[in-house]
Amino acid sequence: MFFGSDNQSCASQVVLDAIINANQGFTHGYGDDQYTQEAIAQLEAVFECPLSVFFVATGTAANCLSLAALVKPWQTILCHQHAHVFMDESTAPEWFTSGARMVGIAQTHNKLSVQALEEYLVQAGDDLPHNPQVGAVTITQANELGQVYSVEEIQSISQVCKSHNIKLHMDGARFANAVAALNCSPADITWKAGVDILSLGATKSGALCAEAIVVFNPDVKDTLMHLRKRSGHLISKGRLFGAQFSAWLKDQHWLTLALHANAQASQLANQLKSCTNVDVIFPVPANEIFMLLPTALAQYLRENGAEFYDWYPQTLPENIQHTENQSYVRLVTSFLTTDEHIENFITTIQAYKQT
Amino acid sequence: MFFGSDNQSCASQVVLDAIINANQGFTHGYGDDQYTQEAIAQLEAVFECPLSVFFVATGTAANCLSLAALVKPWQTILCHQHAHVFMDESTAPEWFTSGARMVGIAQTHNKLSVQALEEYLVQAGDDLPHNPQVGAVTITQANELGQVYSVEEIQSISQVCKSHNIKLHMDGARFANAVAALNCSPADITWKAGVDILSLGATKSGALCAEAIVVFNPDVKDTLMHLRKRSGHLISKGRLFGAQFSAWLKDQHWLTLALHANAQASQLANQLKSCTNVDVIFPVPANEIFMLLPTALAQYLRENGAEFYDWYPQTLPENIQHTENQSYVRLVTSFLTTDEHIENFITTIQAYKQT
Amino acid sequence: MFFGSDNQSCASQVVLDAIINANQGFTHGYGDDQYTQEAIAQLEAVFECPLSVFFVATGTAANCLSLAALVKPWQTILCHQHAHVFMDESTAPEWFTSGARMVGIAQTHNKLSVQALEEYLVQAGDDLPHNPQVGAVTITQANELGQVYSVEEIQSISQVCKSHNIKLHMDGARFANAVAALNCSPADITWKAGVDILSLGATKSGALCAEAIVVFNPDVKDTLMHLRKRSGHLISKGRLFGAQFSAWLKDQHWLTLALHANAQASQLANQLKSCTNVDVIFPVPANEIFMLLPTALAQYLRENGAEFYDWYPQTLPENIQHTENQSYVRLVTSFLTTDEHIENFITTIQAYKQT
Amino acid sequence: MFFGSDNQSCASQVVLDAIINANQGFTHGYGDDQYTQEAIAQLEAVFECPLSVFFVATGTAANCLSLAALVKPWQTILCHQHAHVFMDESTAPEWFTSGARMVGIAQTHNKLSVQALEEYLVQAGDDLPHNPQVGAVTITQANELGQVYSVEEIQSISQVCKSHNIKLHMDGARFANAVAALNCSPADITWKAGVDILSLGATKSGALCAEAIVVFNPDVKDTLMHLRKRSGHLISKGRLFGAQFSAWLKDQHWLTLALHANAQASQLANQLKSCTNVDVIFPVPANEIFMLLPTALAQYLRENGAEFYDWYPQTLPENIQHTENQSYVRLVTSFLTTDEHIENFITTIQAYKQT
Repeated sequence: MFFGSDNQSCASQVVLDAIINANQGFTHGYGDDQYTQEAIAQLEAVFECPLSVFFVATGTAANCLSLAALVKPWQTILCHQHAHVFMDESTAPEWFTSGARMVGIAQTHNKLSVQALEEYLVQAGDDLPHNPQVGAVTITQANELGQVYSVEEIQSISQVCKSHNIKLHMDGARFANAVAALNCSPADITWKAGVDILSLGATKSGALCAEAIVVFNPDVKDTLMHLRKRSGHLISKGRLFGAQFSAWLKDQHWLTLALHANAQASQLANQLKSCTNVDVIFPVPANEIFMLLPTALAQYLRENGAEFYDWYPQTLPENIQHTENQSYVRLVTSFLTTDEHIENFITTIQAYKQT
Repeated sequence: MFFGSDNQSCASQVVLDAIINANQGFTHGYGDDQYTQEAIAQLEAVFECPLSVFFVATGTAANCLSLAALVKPWQTILCHQHAHVFMDESTAPEWFTSGARMVGIAQTHNKLSVQALEEYLVQAGDDLPHNPQVGAVTITQANELGQVYSVEEIQSISQVCKSHNIKLHMDGARFANAVAALNCSPADITWKAGVDILSLGATKSGALCAEAIVVFNPDVKDTLMHLRKRSGHLISKGRLFGAQFSAWLKDQHWLTLALHANAQASQLANQLKSCTNVDVIFPVPANEIFMLLPTALAQYLRENGAEFYDWYPQTLPENIQHTENQSYVRLVTSFLTTDEHIENFITTIQAYKQT
Repeated sequence: MFFGSDNQSCASQVVLDAIINANQGFTHGYGDDQYTQEAIAQLEAVFECPLSVFFVATGTAANCLSLAALVKPWQTILCHQHAHVFMDESTAPEWFTSGARMVGIAQTHNKLSVQALEEYLVQAGDDLPHNPQVGAVTITQANELGQVYSVEEIQSISQVCKSHNIKLHMDGARFANAVAALNCSPADITWKAGVDILSLGATKSGALCAEAIVVFNPDVKDTLMHLRKRSGHLISKGRLFGAQFSAWLKDQHWLTLALHANAQASQLANQLKSCTNVDVIFPVPANEIFMLLPTALAQYLRENGAEFYDWYPQTLPENIQHTENQSYVRLVTSFLTTDEHIENFITTIQAYKQT
Repeated sequence: MFFGSDNQSCASQVVLDAIINANQGFTHGYGDDQYTQEAIAQLEAVFECPLSVFFVATGTAANCLSLAALVKPWQTILCHQHAHVFMDESTAPEWFTSGARMVGIAQTHNKLSVQALEEYLVQAGDDLPHNPQVGAVTITQANELGQVYSVEEIQSISQVCKSHNIKLHMDGARFANAVAALNCSPADITWKAGVDILSLGATKSGALCAEAIVVFNPDVKDTLMHLRKRSGHLISKGRLFGAQFSAWLKDQHWLTLALHANAQASQLANQLKSCTNVDVIFPVPANEIFMLLPTALAQYLRENGAEFYDWYPQTLPENIQHTENQSYVRLVTSFLTTDEHIENFITTIQAYKQT
């Protein structure tokens, strides 16, 4: 019962088979190989536009290289105060950007709201060179509280950005889950909505180790080539990333995996809602569930093999009442989550209640 | 009627005379001269302890070099959300620290409160290496809203810092005003209260260009020697700084100047309080006054030769009612502010009211 | 006939099988898994000592993270002027170290000599903080000209380092080839000889994507944990690296692969020496061959399917006579190089000569 | 007898008087004052073109901010191996540029030669993103060995730069001495010869603390505004720099001072040449003299009050024979060097010989 993170899953068999298939003989290094070229072609087909792609091994690298390509070191980067890039990536953004400032916008809403963004921009000083100016906004799709931005929400954020000459980045570590949830075209929630760069994560959604910096803004291609190299993120045997992305995207395999993960989360959430003593906090459009449960129950679940993380208490909405005896936890499903995992989890909860 | 900033004033005659006096013949470079040595001796006398000193030309350099010596690049630096180092020094802290994170703690109180600090620390994650940990706290004395931390307040903040293995820095751009206001020993509000490094500013308080990084924590001396050099802040003709600091500290000249500036602010604030339509917002223990006044009056004052800045609206306390027709401004006095300046300013307000 | 680089080869079947085997079900993320733990245990067995290990995806990351952990930003890093980390990794060392200086020591010898090192150190100024001081030396084993440092040579370099309080790093992108060539214990040419950190590369020698920062100096473990994360090099599905290293090290598979690569290079070099018009430049103890050949022959070989790189002309020893009609090229063999590849290459040369 | 450095001198009386004169009442801060504006106007008159100016307190800041504005972090900066910015400014260039690489070109000539530059460029690899490309060349005028580049030499270097898309920076810590030596227009050896940015130093040549980044290339103005601020080099009381530069430039005062310094060096060199046992090494067009003398004589001179530095032995030309009993030293004259200083120095040498 691994609900700790979707990165606890292995790669899907399809993706693994692609690695096996690509592991033959010689190819050119550093991405100059057929697998990488095929992956780029697939990405252009999926996003319905020409684009530049830079494959890297981690989401931290994908996010921070993207931001470093979009901002100047004397600018700031805005994000939701609960964004992964703000809370969980050490001071990587500051390092990759040579010292731009990360600003987590405090707000109660579980997505970055246009209102909060505008409020920040209104109060930010414009006395140059003293007051640092906003260079980029980054949003996460699906985000760290399991929420999905609608096409319109992204467009609205993008409009604010454009009117202030601010670049827009999307952290898509769970982009597949968002597309599956919205049942939209990937283009609709990225470049068509004004996104400059997307960090497209495959690792959490069925790959073994594969992230793509998908660049819609052609101005920063050259910069990214250099930044990826000097940050040590240009791997020599590029086929590893190429093969994974090709297989992951082909025949909508990525969406099949994400639809499964989302469906399992939905099913689990529905069953949790029928459990007394358990409160599911947010809507569950994608593959993350946040809930309050008795701490003793959390412990009981763990003793019986369930894995999940206690979550940052400050992400719990203020209007949710809870007691000291409750734990606030996150559950994540993946393509590997079976009905049996869910059933076991629910059965364990029920067994606890009967004790 | 220059109330824009205390850095609009020239140097005091005593400080200027010291520069003139030091400008004779040859000395060794880079601080290896008698003027610098004498200034260090004076600082040790004033602070009643042995210490290391690094003179630099700007407060930004003093603050950011101090912070860079105290934190690791993967740590965070906490300050009040309205701190100068956070709002008005571009992304200098991030640059000097090679990418540590600046976090401005949101709070309504006009000084950094122990409560706000503890609330932040409670919610900061401790999952290494993902969650960046707090490496330093910086407070400003007197601060950006004209407020002065008491000895006890600094001790309380320091205790929280020590219990979390956090270093404490003090931005003393207006340290003289704070000492004058508290009528305390400089030692009491610095090393005796747990401050590791003080940025001691003379420029705003009577010098022409002289800031001192006063290091109470002996561990970081070597690091600061290197950081100052590689950031270009080691001047060759060190006597410029040495002469100014010697004269500024000698015979309590610095306190004489600060007492005057504070007294002028107090006098001005008292007279402002008697003006209808003008609301003085905060207490005025040092040399800064914040007030609401009709925008038309602000314009009238400027047309009649008064200089002052509109201030960041977010620093206005939420419980202060104001209208769209009001401006929120800052007035700063200095050693050069005369009774006549104040009288003219008040007379102009009164003249406006009579129109 | 791929002789361009050993990174043009796929992974060995044994390593691939390990990836396949590890790609089952759920594990904890970020290296907290059995595969990673097993790999560390294998490394401790191979090096006969306790050690810290940080797995990363690229040699650039392994080298530069190691150097960043060993030096201060105000120090310099010395290497042979033809070192890969100096010539082929962009300005990654400067970035990872927050601005330490890379100095490529000019010398004619094809390995970093103690004499050249001492000559540099004698002339380096020691006026602090003006003259940057040497913080680390990095040597490559086997190096960029195919040469291997003997145990005694490493010890000699290490002694110079220790006497100047300088750290010693080893770039082991082809460490396996060096151990195979020397038939020594890995410990003998690393920690026992005074090496602080080894970048142990598996990618060029049979893995798909796996490099290990092997830390013998316990002081820098904590720093590396943070640096790896904030540079985006901590992958989530750590089993990818763990599984590869386990299988690569197990049953001396790594040495079997390296012995084969070395043997193929030796065989190829021997046959090349019997070819007129072809001059093999350096001894061939490991898996790299450097040679002069007629440019027309180089072109003919490429037209017939051979891959190899023109090499940096400045690495050609001054005493080697050559003409404008000659090309200076590098050939690299790998575990995947067959007798047939060699035979075809030689046959093609012979065919050219007959035309 | 201070011949250690021209920065051992005080400011000229004219410059000091300007500081005194400017130290009256209130002005706007951060360079928005009449003194700064007047200095900029004077610079535009002297250089006969519109330009941007950024005043800073040190030559290190002027040089490194200039370079940071001209290069990308993934580029290299070329200079003569004996350049001050390479040898004596710690790793400041790497820091200001966020990690660009400093490369000191090894050569025997006492100025950066076009030949050495071209040789470097020919052998530098162009495989992107692996090989770092040259972004800027910096030359020093007058340079660290007291030599002066002719107009033609600068033009030749500039042509090489332009043909490789490389920016050209001039370290003019002793620019006044060069102009005085060449008797040319300042424009001729800067923007008319292809220089993008000049670090114009007044401190060594009669000011107290004043360096100007003189920007001929309009593209980098905005970048420099931000870089100066975030590196802590924007002083609040800008009149300090403005007043000094105004007075220094007015009525050719700067050239009067430099002509004197040069003449004193020339006179001293001539007299030294008549001393047996003393060998003057380089021509003396400006204000620096390098010489070999018996170590016992050097000691005798110091005991009798002479100040000068032993110089880096590697800067001594290889064809100059010398013994272990000789010292290699540098003498620098300034506007403050009197005939009496020279006479005393020579007399002391003669006195030693008679003992």
